[in-house]
Amino acid sequence: MSSLDEHYPTPCAFCKIATAYPPDASSPIPSNPDPEKIDPQCFLLLSTPHVLAFLDILPIAPGHILLATRKHYQKLSDLHNSPHSSGDGPEAHAAAAREEAREEARETSRALGEYLPLLSRALCQVTGIEDWNVVQNNGERAAQVVPHIHFHLIPRYQEGRRDVAGRKGKVDVGMLKSWTVFGRGAREDLDEVEAEEMARELRGVMREELEGGRGVVGGKAKL
Amino acid sequence: MSSLDEHYPTPCAFCKIATAYPPDASSPIPSNPDPEKIDPQCFLLLSTPHVLAFLDILPIAPGHILLATRKHYQKLSDLHNSPHSSGDGPEAHAAAAREEAREEARETSRALGEYLPLLSRALCQVTGIEDWNVVQNNGERAAQVVPHIHFHLIPRYQEGRRDVAGRKGKVDVGMLKSWTVFGRGAREDLDEVEAEEMARELRGVMREELEGGRGVVGGKAKL
Repeated sequence: MSSLDEHYPTPCAFCKIATAYPPDASSPIPSNPDPEKIDPQCFLLLSTPHVLAFLDILPIAPGHILLATRKHYQKLSDLHNSPHSSGDGPEAHAAAAREEAREEARETSRALGEYLPLLSRALCQVTGIEDWNVVQNNGERAAQVVPHIHFHLIPRYQEGRRDVAGRKGKVDVGMLKSWTVFGRGAREDLDEVEAEEMARELRGVMREELEGGRGVVGGKAKL
Repeated sequence: MSSLDEHYPTPCAFCKIATAYPPDASSPIPSNPDPEKIDPQCFLLLSTPHVLAFLDILPIAPGHILLATRKHYQKLSDLHNSPHSSGDGPEAHAAAAREEAREEARETSRALGEYLPLLSRALCQVTGIEDWNVVQNNGERAAQVVPHIHFHLIPRYQEGRRDVAGRKGKVDVGMLKSWTVFGRGAREDLDEVEAEEMARELRGVMREELEGGRGVVGGKAKL
């Protein structure tokens, strides 16, 4: 069994996360979610009816975030969100069910776009970075590892610079320079203590932005 | 003057495209847009009040598409689409103007998410590829070249395979394998005849999906 099989076992690892962490009607930002609800642990950042965000368990750089759809779609093209997109085959659905699936796909695609800026701002504030890449891979040839739509947010640290929290931005520069960064490379396991702390800070910053002074601000986020 | 300065001159190249091609209320898919309205030519695919898509003039692979915001935002984090995001500074705006800017940013972020699947489906159908990468770079350190939010859709051709239209999928594999793919590399100019044909096919496929049998289907798109 390869290292990646260990980390991303079947059935779909991201569906497992979606099932373990249902959406909370009160806020898209979960309050103190338990990382140990599933194995491997999940450091949850965001949980809505359509999308979830959590830390990558094989981060390329500290703060590497994934934004995934809640429902299982393999590729972006599977989000059949247009009136005449072919979807799962017109004959397989009654008109009402087809319309419901289309609306679900449409709201999901829009939620992916909507939450990328919020996650990006939190990532910048918590890690101190100013530059980052957003990457979404479709298919094996494009280095998609988990066959469930997800966007990577990958901070690009200035070499040798410490982030605002005093952590060293210890990026594997060799990995970053290589396209294999999104494939089966030598990415390191997430440090669970650091991850828990970073997830709490990210949630705190996002909650503050969404709820203003009204929300409970978690952890040591700089607000 | 470097090659990239020639291709992406200031002021903002993507703002120039947005100005040259205003949204058309009748359809997000433009009808026979004139590539020569600006210099360098623009092969427009999509034009809505919030986003535009067009072919990259320095494609990494045939069919390389860009999806950009209509309004000038530099990075994803500049899309201040949440109730308490700091935006351009609270003191700079009256409350109503601030709310309007927030709503504009929110609709823009949602449109980015919404049009990626449609563009992806058209890309797959027209080029015959099944795998592709979506990449969005923020900041120079992340290899952002034009400082105006845009997503790349980059097809990953099977090596040696011809696409459905009989074109050779002549990808620069060395470029694709390198992270510098998104930087100042040796990308080739777009062939204008091929580009015009591909843009017409992409628009035809998207128009068919959005309008069903009712739309005029352009070019030789396989429908």
